[in-house]
Amino acid sequence: MLINTLNYPIYIGALPPITHTGKVLVVSDSVVAPLYLDKLLEKINASQVFSHVIPAGEVHKNQATLEGVLESAFEANLSRADCMLALGGGVVSDLAGFAGAIYKRGISFEIVPTTLLAQVDASIGGKTGINNAYGKNLIGAFHPPKAVYIDPNFLQTLPTREFKAGIAEMIKKAVCFDRDYFEWLRTYPLDQHLELGIAKSVAIKAQVVAQDEKEAHLRMGLNYGHTFGHAIEKEQNYQGFLHGEAVAVGMQMANALAVKLGLLDTHASEQIDALLEIYDLRFDYQVPNIEAFYKILCMDKKNMDRPRFVLPTRIGDFRLIEDIPQNMVMEVLKTWS
Amino acid sequence: MLINTLNYPIYIGALPPITHTGKVLVVSDSVVAPLYLDKLLEKINASQVFSHVIPAGEVHKNQATLEGVLESAFEANLSRADCMLALGGGVVSDLAGFAGAIYKRGISFEIVPTTLLAQVDASIGGKTGINNAYGKNLIGAFHPPKAVYIDPNFLQTLPTREFKAGIAEMIKKAVCFDRDYFEWLRTYPLDQHLELGIAKSVAIKAQVVAQDEKEAHLRMGLNYGHTFGHAIEKEQNYQGFLHGEAVAVGMQMANALAVKLGLLDTHASEQIDALLEIYDLRFDYQVPNIEAFYKILCMDKKNMDRPRFVLPTRIGDFRLIEDIPQNMVMEVLKTWS
Repeated sequence: MLINTLNYPIYIGALPPITHTGKVLVVSDSVVAPLYLDKLLEKINASQVFSHVIPAGEVHKNQATLEGVLESAFEANLSRADCMLALGGGVVSDLAGFAGAIYKRGISFEIVPTTLLAQVDASIGGKTGINNAYGKNLIGAFHPPKAVYIDPNFLQTLPTREFKAGIAEMIKKAVCFDRDYFEWLRTYPLDQHLELGIAKSVAIKAQVVAQDEKEAHLRMGLNYGHTFGHAIEKEQNYQGFLHGEAVAVGMQMANALAVKLGLLDTHASEQIDALLEIYDLRFDYQVPNIEAFYKILCMDKKNMDRPRFVLPTRIGDFRLIEDIPQNMVMEVLKTWS
Repeated sequence: MLINTLNYPIYIGALPPITHTGKVLVVSDSVVAPLYLDKLLEKINASQVFSHVIPAGEVHKNQATLEGVLESAFEANLSRADCMLALGGGVVSDLAGFAGAIYKRGISFEIVPTTLLAQVDASIGGKTGINNAYGKNLIGAFHPPKAVYIDPNFLQTLPTREFKAGIAEMIKKAVCFDRDYFEWLRTYPLDQHLELGIAKSVAIKAQVVAQDEKEAHLRMGLNYGHTFGHAIEKEQNYQGFLHGEAVAVGMQMANALAVKLGLLDTHASEQIDALLEIYDLRFDYQVPNIEAFYKILCMDKKNMDRPRFVLPTRIGDFRLIEDIPQNMVMEVLKTWS
């Protein structure tokens, strides 16, 4: 299947041969490379192929790892006509994409996502970046890939926990953009309809990005659950919940805030809870220090001085709310403390 | 005077008041800040104004200095609606512009260039970046400013040597794009017609960039003298010639190569020499090691595996030449050894 809504093709299905006239630098991580690097290299036809393996994990999505990738690109003397290819999850594609964005002011870059989260979300839309001491993805660039190859076969080796974390990003899109998809996710078990479920999720994201690449408004909906979720990840120093799990908790926090503000009715909130429940995406979480947590919320990159929240108004629609009084947010946080 | 060829206004004349609804972070360097920071701050009307002073000099256009600027931006908690403002020469605007490009995936950025080189060249066109161990501007982004304020009064305190180095970039544009401007530069002493000379140079660059922002072909002409020039700077570890001086030497090397290849006649080459002479831009330079120098040439970011050269074909036109046999380049280098 080919999704062509954006300026680059998104292929869904068994990985096709990948041909380049120039050089290719494959960037992968220490978990994915042993499983799939050789398989990918067999598919690549290029003048020269190099590879660079980064340590796996969100905690390594930082400047030091970025510099390692850039070093390999310089050692391979890639030109602007050559290509960087990310093989892995969102950490790999975000980081390799950012390296591609700033190497010689930008070279082309392609993605072979190997996690569900990367296949349905991170690989689409051109956001790239790294984390730093101030938070997640705070250093980065918009650098759309030239092509994305989504092969669900990679998911056969994905740990169940990571698979489920990826579903959180599918539910996110259903809640904010597409009631039909929400119903579909409630009706069809994903493990039996995986390729279609992925394709629907990719199609929604591609449409959103096509309408609002630079996140003026519509694309903000993709941040549902992320303002809270990023703060959770940062508070846990990226070593507790997986990203998708933190987003799942973040969606429930956002729902609670939306209900408190009278934007969302409790029935819809319960329906979202029920869908999260189906995929084991409801977690016990305690905010260790709500004042400190609020401070982290204010640092999120979509914010002015106060946090802005994407809040669902019903299943299939959302609003972006600024200027929520601090005490309202604190009251919601208290129920998690 | 207002030049509006690009998507952002370029003001030429006495610095006007600068108004922002959000915050502004001024980035300057240790030479310019003591002279002009207070003067600039008086002109800025914004919700909050911060400043960050970097050490002056090309040798500091690196990752460590960049991280300092980003740190200040995070400490000020700039949002995407706020602004980074560069006050200084090309090093400051390249580095602050790159910080603006990658901070939260890009915030707006304005330039008040204070050197002739920055006024006529570096501040126009959206190229930003830093140097690294592999060479000059090899890490960077295209990130056009929102506005450029060119006030020739800043040049009153500019050391003569730096002023002359800036003229090299004016001559560069005359040779590659505009025979009339070349004649103008030969006829009118710049010190008596400075604002007009700057405006003409800015207008040429803006037209070139408007036609070819991403450097597909025409904009390549702006790299005349730069492939050799960058190699000279790198070989000198950025502590010998000023950038414009290295470009002046680089133009002469390019001319010699162009003459050797039969692209340029010696009369035109001599006319260019004569104009460089008027502004004391002919230098004694010896390539210390021509093999090592050739290797540096091959690393320049516009290159594939062989260096590409912008060579003038007559005054007012150029060609981009690839695939020049190594021995031809070596022969030219020998005359500088």
